[in-house]
Amino acid sequence: MALTREQNEQLTRTGAGTLVGDLFRRYWMPALLAEEVAAADGPPVRVQLLGEKLVAFRDTQGRLGLISEFCAHRGVSLWFGRNEECGLRCSYHGWKYDVTGQCVDLPSEAEATGMRSRIKLKSYPCIELGGAIWTYMGPPELQPEPPALEWTQVAPERRFVSKRLQESNYLQAIEGGIDSSHVSFLHGGSLNRDPLFKGSRANEYNLRDRMPHFEVVEYDGGLLIGARREADSDRWYWRITPFIMPCHTLIAPRAGHPIGGHAWVPIDDERCWAWSINYHPARALTAPERQAMKDGKGIHVKYVPGTFVPLANKDNDYLMDRSTQKSGVNYSGIEGIAMQDASLQESMGPVQDRTKENLCSTDNGIIMTRRLLLKAAKANREGTPLPGLDPDTQRVRSCAIELPRNVHFKDGAWEGLFRELDTDPVTV
Amino acid sequence: MALTREQNEQLTRTGAGTLVGDLFRRYWMPALLAEEVAAADGPPVRVQLLGEKLVAFRDTQGRLGLISEFCAHRGVSLWFGRNEECGLRCSYHGWKYDVTGQCVDLPSEAEATGMRSRIKLKSYPCIELGGAIWTYMGPPELQPEPPALEWTQVAPERRFVSKRLQESNYLQAIEGGIDSSHVSFLHGGSLNRDPLFKGSRANEYNLRDRMPHFEVVEYDGGLLIGARREADSDRWYWRITPFIMPCHTLIAPRAGHPIGGHAWVPIDDERCWAWSINYHPARALTAPERQAMKDGKGIHVKYVPGTFVPLANKDNDYLMDRSTQKSGVNYSGIEGIAMQDASLQESMGPVQDRTKENLCSTDNGIIMTRRLLLKAAKANREGTPLPGLDPDTQRVRSCAIELPRNVHFKDGAWEGLFRELDTDPVTV
Amino acid sequence: MALTREQNEQLTRTGAGTLVGDLFRRYWMPALLAEEVAAADGPPVRVQLLGEKLVAFRDTQGRLGLISEFCAHRGVSLWFGRNEECGLRCSYHGWKYDVTGQCVDLPSEAEATGMRSRIKLKSYPCIELGGAIWTYMGPPELQPEPPALEWTQVAPERRFVSKRLQESNYLQAIEGGIDSSHVSFLHGGSLNRDPLFKGSRANEYNLRDRMPHFEVVEYDGGLLIGARREADSDRWYWRITPFIMPCHTLIAPRAGHPIGGHAWVPIDDERCWAWSINYHPARALTAPERQAMKDGKGIHVKYVPGTFVPLANKDNDYLMDRSTQKSGVNYSGIEGIAMQDASLQESMGPVQDRTKENLCSTDNGIIMTRRLLLKAAKANREGTPLPGLDPDTQRVRSCAIELPRNVHFKDGAWEGLFRELDTDPVTV
Repeated sequence: MALTREQNEQLTRTGAGTLVGDLFRRYWMPALLAEEVAAADGPPVRVQLLGEKLVAFRDTQGRLGLISEFCAHRGVSLWFGRNEECGLRCSYHGWKYDVTGQCVDLPSEAEATGMRSRIKLKSYPCIELGGAIWTYMGPPELQPEPPALEWTQVAPERRFVSKRLQESNYLQAIEGGIDSSHVSFLHGGSLNRDPLFKGSRANEYNLRDRMPHFEVVEYDGGLLIGARREADSDRWYWRITPFIMPCHTLIAPRAGHPIGGHAWVPIDDERCWAWSINYHPARALTAPERQAMKDGKGIHVKYVPGTFVPLANKDNDYLMDRSTQKSGVNYSGIEGIAMQDASLQESMGPVQDRTKENLCSTDNGIIMTRRLLLKAAKANREGTPLPGLDPDTQRVRSCAIELPRNVHFKDGAWEGLFRELDTDPVTV
Repeated sequence: MALTREQNEQLTRTGAGTLVGDLFRRYWMPALLAEEVAAADGPPVRVQLLGEKLVAFRDTQGRLGLISEFCAHRGVSLWFGRNEECGLRCSYHGWKYDVTGQCVDLPSEAEATGMRSRIKLKSYPCIELGGAIWTYMGPPELQPEPPALEWTQVAPERRFVSKRLQESNYLQAIEGGIDSSHVSFLHGGSLNRDPLFKGSRANEYNLRDRMPHFEVVEYDGGLLIGARREADSDRWYWRITPFIMPCHTLIAPRAGHPIGGHAWVPIDDERCWAWSINYHPARALTAPERQAMKDGKGIHVKYVPGTFVPLANKDNDYLMDRSTQKSGVNYSGIEGIAMQDASLQESMGPVQDRTKENLCSTDNGIIMTRRLLLKAAKANREGTPLPGLDPDTQRVRSCAIELPRNVHFKDGAWEGLFRELDTDPVTV
Repeated sequence: MALTREQNEQLTRTGAGTLVGDLFRRYWMPALLAEEVAAADGPPVRVQLLGEKLVAFRDTQGRLGLISEFCAHRGVSLWFGRNEECGLRCSYHGWKYDVTGQCVDLPSEAEATGMRSRIKLKSYPCIELGGAIWTYMGPPELQPEPPALEWTQVAPERRFVSKRLQESNYLQAIEGGIDSSHVSFLHGGSLNRDPLFKGSRANEYNLRDRMPHFEVVEYDGGLLIGARREADSDRWYWRITPFIMPCHTLIAPRAGHPIGGHAWVPIDDERCWAWSINYHPARALTAPERQAMKDGKGIHVKYVPGTFVPLANKDNDYLMDRSTQKSGVNYSGIEGIAMQDASLQESMGPVQDRTKENLCSTDNGIIMTRRLLLKAAKANREGTPLPGLDPDTQRVRSCAIELPRNVHFKDGAWEGLFRELDTDPVTV
């Protein structure tokens, strides 16, 4: 059941021209927090995505540019450039590029030579949506409609979005995101202490039944991964985790709390951005909720000041506290849901060696996700349709529900997964 | 006389399956200080040996485990694990391993599938002896008897054991340990200032005769390396340095002081643990002696707090003091016997290029040691007997003695090398 | 016009045996500041040049030695050695080398064996000249006459010499040094604020005409790179930048200020020493000028204390100040002429990928310099004469001049380029 070396490489390499790298390039992906490039003519920002080094800027008219980091002339980083008068100007010889990457001023050459008009940096279109700047790095003629993930559609007061650096390949991060089974262990002690998770009956179910049964349903946007545990009164407790292509996961909500979700975006093959979102489809986040998110509770983290690097990170052993681990307050001794996950995922090494795994039945979601990614990547090569491109397929929610034992989640939870915006989540 | 590139690689590579790596795996080696895993159910400790990443723990019943660092399930580091109820439990999904590496709980799979019983991590047996945890990483059917080096056999009050990280291949460290000739130079200024070396007539002999004559005698445990210098009254001063297979060296004692010794244990091919031992076979160490050892005198060091990294290290140029070097107080300007050696050995690069050497007659011990290691490594491949496996061959001491010029150390010092426990060292 | 991968590699690799590496080895190059090895029997200094690790020392009689860093015996770094009694003695076993690399004492072997006399480390001749220690790393029989660059010939009070580490290949540094066109942009805001550049009419010309016309003239020492801009009164303003083989550049002077110049010396292929020189051929530097240079003004920098690493460096994003960039006080937001250049050159990566460039007409000097280096490197292989070896060809100055439009700089500026010592520069 372990992967071959070739399969592992196919799944984890994301550069241009790679199998899965080209698949990712068919989808819009979050590239920056909107606040990073909020100001017209503000500082440009270095961005690396799928191994490509880029620079983002907002021009005088408020347009967003995401272009190659390096000047076409001599290869100088445009991060040092001047964002002025509708373009980013290289500090070295004043070559200037607009948001499309087109050179609009080339002061070292007479316009008559036509050189300026021929100079165009690689550029990618951007959309601001849901507090993030999204980009599409694939063939222009195949550009899909803008993302419609539910958290991008709600009003800003109903949403909180953060990102952090994760020092691992994107795939081991995704595999954590769709893995309901580790909740019973790793997060066990933390759920009822965290202001964004506490107070749900589901926390008891998670602790009580540590061998969930997985049912995975493929749908037009990706997968619906159902994990079933014993609940009270002879019922099943279902957590349904959507995996929306190519890198979005949603967390089954807990009674009253906002829904959680992630996007796992490759920086290069050994690092990814872990985007962490909380939103409530039907109400504004409360002030205490928003404060807790800013304070690094729930799926968010505290940062090394001035960076997106978690304060608890590999270099400081994630501030491991053996005493809270021993007492059971923290199952792993690491503080915070997000870093509990990240610490273990990073401990696998930058790229997990999946030829050495021993998967079991609770890994069904992981197995199916790998299979889907490879299948879609091959479909992309062959030019056949891809899941998750149609915005309608992205309009799915996570859902937590108790059902009678004779009802499959496909029947009992479907309505909860595909409810309209402005309705409450179905949750336990 | 310089080695070929192939010989140098054979001698310095220690991973599984390498020629010398497989030789080392035939012997017990010190893996940790006993104090690092003293407490039952205490924190697990990361250990790397011969290139293999392991984790050590002491279980509820006090048994020691040294097993693969990574969970068999998804490859998470078990350093993050919970040491509880006779096993180390992975924080991710609760898989639990006993000290043999056997999976004893696999909560994500029904016991009936038989999966749990099939999951077993690589593990190595451990013995606590002489203040250290020893392990054997070779074929179980070839496991030798426990180590019997003299320092492991004395009562704790007669012994002091420390370890430090050395940022070089093990071999250049061993080669320093058996090299009596550099004492006349590198340590020259320090011997009479150090509380654990001072006051011996031998210090004068070392300084006076800088071209010792080497006689190397192979014996069942390895080599007895005799270095002969002129002494008073027309006699020879002999320092005999045993090299006990595969990586133990003993320092010729100075009058009244405890005997010193080292084990040089490969972490990977570019780093090793320098174990440093002082012991007296016939009396307890005195309080001032023990304090001096704790203070980094003699062959011990001061540390970067919370680590086994010497405070004076490569990153700070070993706190080189050109003024004490110039004045001659310190021959090399580096403080402390241990770091005088380590600084120079690390300056050769992580793996010394032995194809460029120019060896001379005082390098006889080094030449013979390399030869013995290669010979034994080939014997191991061929299945013929190895030196140093029989505990009796490990019961050797270092010895320093003045002898008439017509007496070879094999005759005059033999009794001093193989005296019984509880007897005083033969020393100058 | 972009280079092939092969050409880029040929131009940027400088190790022994490489095409351009062997070319560099035909010339004297500055290796250290004279002050670094000022004292007889002072501390030895590690030096890396063209990828070779060396150690420099001044012996008891004041002679300079530049020899292989590693002892011929066991490969220990001689940086740890003792500089005493006319030689550098290894701290390990006391082997001692004189300034020619000859082993003059080998205490571990009887002199009668003849071994000592056979041991000789690689060594390179040194000359102290112009505040620098120069070395020649090529075939002894081809050693040229000592350097005669004008700044090496003036009295010490007329000269200020500094060096800093640049974290890039030498070539992108040279290419900055000969590139008059970027002055109009990168340094635009800084020229009239800097005490060593301000107050020249040329600063206006540089800002006003941003598309200089280049005329490049090959001469016996290398290239004379003329950049022509519009001046007042229907005249041309010429800046002539000599490139003297293999790595020297001179900066066109500004009225009244000292002349500036650089040597760009490869440490290895990813780092170089940026030597920065100011001198006045006809007068002593004033106290305020000298103070400004010490304070990191002009082409000099402030340092991380105790090092030659610029205080503003890659690790701190060169202390980029977006507010001074935005206001235009600093075109790139980086403080200081030197780090404005270095920051951009380092941003190209350790070795710029010149296969992706788009060169334009203002890059003529760069194109010609690359061509000359490759041509000379091939001439060196073929044994035909090389430019810049004859000291007379090195006696050239930079020059800035206004000329009528019908006068080429070859005619109008020639006298200014080759004036005798002790005459004022021709400058605007």
